[in-house]
Amino acid sequence: MSRFMSARFAGLEAYTPGEQPQDMQYVKLNTNESPYPPSPEVFARLSREEIEKLQLYPDPEGKILRQKLAALYGVGPENIFLSNGSDDILNFAFMAFCDESHGAVFPEISYGFYPVYADLYGVKAKKIPLKEDFSIDHKDYCHAGGMVVIANPNAPTGMEISQAQIREILRTNPDNVVIIDEAYIDFGGTSCVELVKEYENLLVVQTFSKSRSMAGARLGFAIASAGLIEDLNKIKYSTNPYNINRLTLAAGEAAVDSNEYYMENCKKIAATRERTTAALREMGFTVLDSVANFIFAKSDAISGAALYAGLKKKGVLVRYFGKKRIEDFVRITIGTDEQMEILLEKTKELLKEGKA
Amino acid sequence: MSRFMSARFAGLEAYTPGEQPQDMQYVKLNTNESPYPPSPEVFARLSREEIEKLQLYPDPEGKILRQKLAALYGVGPENIFLSNGSDDILNFAFMAFCDESHGAVFPEISYGFYPVYADLYGVKAKKIPLKEDFSIDHKDYCHAGGMVVIANPNAPTGMEISQAQIREILRTNPDNVVIIDEAYIDFGGTSCVELVKEYENLLVVQTFSKSRSMAGARLGFAIASAGLIEDLNKIKYSTNPYNINRLTLAAGEAAVDSNEYYMENCKKIAATRERTTAALREMGFTVLDSVANFIFAKSDAISGAALYAGLKKKGVLVRYFGKKRIEDFVRITIGTDEQMEILLEKTKELLKEGKA
Repeated sequence: MSRFMSARFAGLEAYTPGEQPQDMQYVKLNTNESPYPPSPEVFARLSREEIEKLQLYPDPEGKILRQKLAALYGVGPENIFLSNGSDDILNFAFMAFCDESHGAVFPEISYGFYPVYADLYGVKAKKIPLKEDFSIDHKDYCHAGGMVVIANPNAPTGMEISQAQIREILRTNPDNVVIIDEAYIDFGGTSCVELVKEYENLLVVQTFSKSRSMAGARLGFAIASAGLIEDLNKIKYSTNPYNINRLTLAAGEAAVDSNEYYMENCKKIAATRERTTAALREMGFTVLDSVANFIFAKSDAISGAALYAGLKKKGVLVRYFGKKRIEDFVRITIGTDEQMEILLEKTKELLKEGKA
Repeated sequence: MSRFMSARFAGLEAYTPGEQPQDMQYVKLNTNESPYPPSPEVFARLSREEIEKLQLYPDPEGKILRQKLAALYGVGPENIFLSNGSDDILNFAFMAFCDESHGAVFPEISYGFYPVYADLYGVKAKKIPLKEDFSIDHKDYCHAGGMVVIANPNAPTGMEISQAQIREILRTNPDNVVIIDEAYIDFGGTSCVELVKEYENLLVVQTFSKSRSMAGARLGFAIASAGLIEDLNKIKYSTNPYNINRLTLAAGEAAVDSNEYYMENCKKIAATRERTTAALREMGFTVLDSVANFIFAKSDAISGAALYAGLKKKGVLVRYFGKKRIEDFVRITIGTDEQMEILLEKTKELLKEGKA
């Protein structure tokens, strides 16, 4: 930190993204990307004509994409907010809905960015431990007294809470925003998007990064009551109105048009997840019940740190957090069947080497 | 504003971007875009392979593009910060370098976003009037007692201050950051990038939106001492680490590789600007001396509001601000020679109609 930076950031610890090695070819199972390419419609849409238009500003309202998403999710365009990746929405929400008298409440083990936003804006954060089995006890978030943020399914566990439980959280927090971060919802979870019509305090966050193979395009969206969407727009138009570029808007439109392709991929990934989970359990691993595109696994035979390092040496990247309570685990993104075969094989090798 | 939004934003007035009509075809001279398409290298770079990689996250550090920009500007990669449009940098700077004891100081008539950032973060803003001739008196910014923000050339006037004057501002504000916003520098102004080596408090902001025909791609960059760049990174990694998408990074690299193409375009635009300025003056307009890709003009024969509305009716979009002191002016982006011929013709028609 230079001597010019405001002293209020002295203690701020930024988020550490997963490794994005640009050099050697890894079997990359560390940042929950899709192993499948964008749809043929996306390739067709990013044409020479679309590139030529780069000289002009994009539509700051993203009207066409908002209309398409609204139709897909059965809401109105006034219920859709587009963003430069879903982190942008979380950032705006912490800024808009929290202050000295409105803190934030979220699970102690969840997406590592929530506490960073709280720190950045000087927001009081209540971090609630997971239950013994790593699930979220929804009762902990009833009458929470602050903005609630829950990833559903949760990361890095992959476990979800039910729509009935979310309803109870919404009902018991009528004066606070409840964010349900559904970044991983398309791989088998139950979305609560339909509750947006009943609860004006619900903000659902989704992304094109995972199920729609567009992590590289940076496109997130929120679905909520028109009032909350207006608030997010107020922040957007006070920070960076043109926050989504033309090619990403175009790719997003084409992706919604080819929704079936992506939902097919999600089914494939879910099937691969079940196979991989069974195989790891066969090898003695504890694997949490995941409905996401990743699994959280540990073994008594090898530490999380050793598994991560050993796999990396063998060309397979997984994510290791090394945080209290989860230091034995690694998070493994579900890739193609072929990629998971390699993971399983290299893991077997490591277990053997450990015994030798 | 919904009842959920923090009360501190009650008075916040967001920025109003220029019109981006998506329907009818205008001669669009209202948001300072380049009339020339991206370089052939950009088209070549945004290939099928590049689109396929959209499934993977981009490099959050933007290493390759930073290296290329560093080489172009004669600084190190540690002196370069990349952003999702240059608004992002201004946003981060107001957040990082201002607080209760560090206000912001900028011209009363300049880029309309500066006061929005100040409001957003509750930063005390000192707005300094321009001189009678609409120029900036650099002495007003010496010993300013807060973060200085000057667009050079200034918008919407197009007028610049000299490097010697910027030096004096830097020297007399050793404990505050001085932002020189060079969004329009490539069209004839003198950049102060080389001063970055001498002054650790200098933050130069540039963009690919104007001179590099990439308004639709959203790519800005800052050049500054390594300390200030680190501070901006701290904010970036605490808000949105993957703030630039893959295709924009790739297009940016190709644009730097084809820098000559763009600098040729800038020369053409400067020549068109001089011709247009002369022609409008011939028609009785007052036109400020611009070194940017726009001109600021007024006529005693027609009000700014009437000129804007009349031109729009005739299919030519210019920007009208309607703000005190500049309510007689319109800002006209410099397009191709052909576009400016249409502007001049339609303006002549309006003047005639006014007399009839």
